[in-house]
Amino acid sequence: MAKYQIAVLPGDGIGPEVMDQANRVLDAVCSKFDIQLERTVYPVGGYAIDHHGEALPESTLKGCEQADAILFGSIGGPKWDSLPLDKRPERAALLTLRSHFDLFSNLRPAKIYEGLAHLSPLRVDIAQSGVDVLVVRELTSGIYFGQPKGLEGEGEEQYAFDTMRYSKREIRRIAISAFDAAMKRGKKVTSVDKANVLVCSRLWREVVEEVAKDYTEVTLEHIYIDNATMQLLCDPAQFDVMLCSNLFGDIISDECAMLTGSMGLLPSASINGDGFGMYEPAGGSAPDIAGKGIANPIAQILSASMMLRYSLGEEAAADAIDAAVMKTLSDGVLTGELMPKEQRDKACTTEQVGTYLIQQI
Amino acid sequence: MAKYQIAVLPGDGIGPEVMDQANRVLDAVCSKFDIQLERTVYPVGGYAIDHHGEALPESTLKGCEQADAILFGSIGGPKWDSLPLDKRPERAALLTLRSHFDLFSNLRPAKIYEGLAHLSPLRVDIAQSGVDVLVVRELTSGIYFGQPKGLEGEGEEQYAFDTMRYSKREIRRIAISAFDAAMKRGKKVTSVDKANVLVCSRLWREVVEEVAKDYTEVTLEHIYIDNATMQLLCDPAQFDVMLCSNLFGDIISDECAMLTGSMGLLPSASINGDGFGMYEPAGGSAPDIAGKGIANPIAQILSASMMLRYSLGEEAAADAIDAAVMKTLSDGVLTGELMPKEQRDKACTTEQVGTYLIQQI
Ligand SMILES: CC(C)[C@H](C(=O)O)[C@@H](O)C(=O)O
Ligand SMILES: CC(C)[C@H](C(=O)O)[C@@H](O)C(=O)O
Repeated sequence: MAKYQIAVLPGDGIGPEVMDQANRVLDAVCSKFDIQLERTVYPVGGYAIDHHGEALPESTLKGCEQADAILFGSIGGPKWDSLPLDKRPERAALLTLRSHFDLFSNLRPAKIYEGLAHLSPLRVDIAQSGVDVLVVRELTSGIYFGQPKGLEGEGEEQYAFDTMRYSKREIRRIAISAFDAAMKRGKKVTSVDKANVLVCSRLWREVVEEVAKDYTEVTLEHIYIDNATMQLLCDPAQFDVMLCSNLFGDIISDECAMLTGSMGLLPSASINGDGFGMYEPAGGSAPDIAGKGIANPIAQILSASMMLRYSLGEEAAADAIDAAVMKTLSDGVLTGELMPKEQRDKACTTEQVGTYLIQQI
Repeated sequence: MAKYQIAVLPGDGIGPEVMDQANRVLDAVCSKFDIQLERTVYPVGGYAIDHHGEALPESTLKGCEQADAILFGSIGGPKWDSLPLDKRPERAALLTLRSHFDLFSNLRPAKIYEGLAHLSPLRVDIAQSGVDVLVVRELTSGIYFGQPKGLEGEGEEQYAFDTMRYSKREIRRIAISAFDAAMKRGKKVTSVDKANVLVCSRLWREVVEEVAKDYTEVTLEHIYIDNATMQLLCDPAQFDVMLCSNLFGDIISDECAMLTGSMGLLPSASINGDGFGMYEPAGGSAPDIAGKGIANPIAQILSASMMLRYSLGEEAAADAIDAAVMKTLSDGVLTGELMPKEQRDKACTTEQVGTYLIQQI
């Protein structure tokens, strides 16, 4: 029997309640596929600040180090927004975990599910033409981590500076992630850059072109970031895999997520070179609906499925979850935010969605 | 009689043909309002490369220096896309003009005109809730011009770097532009940044807060760039003036333009501290339709109106053009791209639109 250690970090807001459902679903697939998942819960985010004085306690980091993967909920909320930036949950925990484990490859699928096109903020005909994009975002370099960064000078001439920086090695490994992913999907990579302005983008293009030579079946296109945000609006169906640097990926992945109109359905994976990864919903901690039992658990459940697939290699179990999600959605077992306003009295609770989904496994 | 010198740079693609109409409209308002506009045409872009060996010949730059404003068409096209980056029309001409004349304040209005909401790629209900945004983009600093920029190292560890850099003075002057503009519009400024990651954005926030103190009637909000791209899709009506750094403004202004679905209607202004400015359509040179007489001249005509308003202080003449544009649009005198496909046989030509518009002045 395959046996794995998972660090579970539920975090704040709706994190704990959607994590409960992900755990139930994991229990169901584990017993069906004979997998043993030992799960240990660790504090993170605002909860960890309140109870342990910091967003990412040493014990949590140690726990993650000993695990085969991290299943992450969501963090942050108004309560901690007035803390100094470096102490705030999102930054202190997320950026540290990403760089500590070298989780350079961030996979963010965004897709309009059948029957849910009406949720998209796009015009009906465009939404129906389909959005099914995988954003592959570089997550541990670029302007997020580039040095030097700081403040210099005095008075009105005081200036701030940040450094965008990419090495060939860093570009190559994320490009390979994107091309590998494209081989399992639509065999098209659109690399997003600003090569008409940035030296980093020029090196990016050069290395991406080199990597493309090893993937003759994959079509490669380059697009400027400004044009990409436009093309996503008028013709999103042209995109399959979008390969982005850290900052551009932050922007593009959020735009893609919003295009689907159903953030509560979108998982994400952040993986390093050894297959270790952190898996979390694309949406935030939604403090406004936390504790009400109405949050959509599917993004968290699909994050668990990505964990099985990418870090544990348990493809069959991941497929089973994905199929159960599809069935649940197409059977109309939905939380309120996925329904037209006038039908929301028929909405399912977080737990009802979890229960129905488990029955499909 | 007021007398001004204008440098006219038609450029490539549809540039010359839409510029013809802008010139006819200028002739009409000038005779009505007793203004003398001496216009001299200079080569720029691909045309200048072909005839003078460079995208921005010295004589063109000199001509612009002697003028009170620059009326710019559009540049670039497939013919010059294989040139080395620094020689290509867009970069060599645009970036040089911006920094040479210190055109730090880029105003890009984007609006869905009455009766044209169906052109927007947004869902009908969202498009009808209204898009009427003025993007105020810093245009001469940030990561576009920050030093150092370059390549270092060898082999796989070779790396590229760009520097994002903003001084308090640079932030203050663009913030003042945004607040001044907001006072003439909806009295709301949304400042776009990535203060959870960038030191530049933190200084940006600090200075914007300071400037806000002098505009007690204006509401100020801060938004992260990733969230801004999302909010523009689901609730664009919340925005009035969006204040952005150079890179973020490049992205946001193009997203806003696409949201209207009518790029051919959108002008832009790039102004310096002395009121000198360059005025150009937001869209590109559209080489695919160039020379066919079907391009929409309105963005160019509205650019001429912005020139009258911002560089020449001829408000009445500018108002007259704007009113004539509104009338022309609401009378349904439209080029084909603004019409539903099945009605395009009734489309007006570039010249017909110009003629009708002049009759309204
Ligand atoms: C919280 C923030 C630092 C983070 C980022 O910009 O990467 C977030 O926006 C994300 O995309 O996960
Ligand atoms: C051509 C390019 C350098 C330019 C920019 O990024 O500023 C263009 O996209 C624009 O917005 O005018």
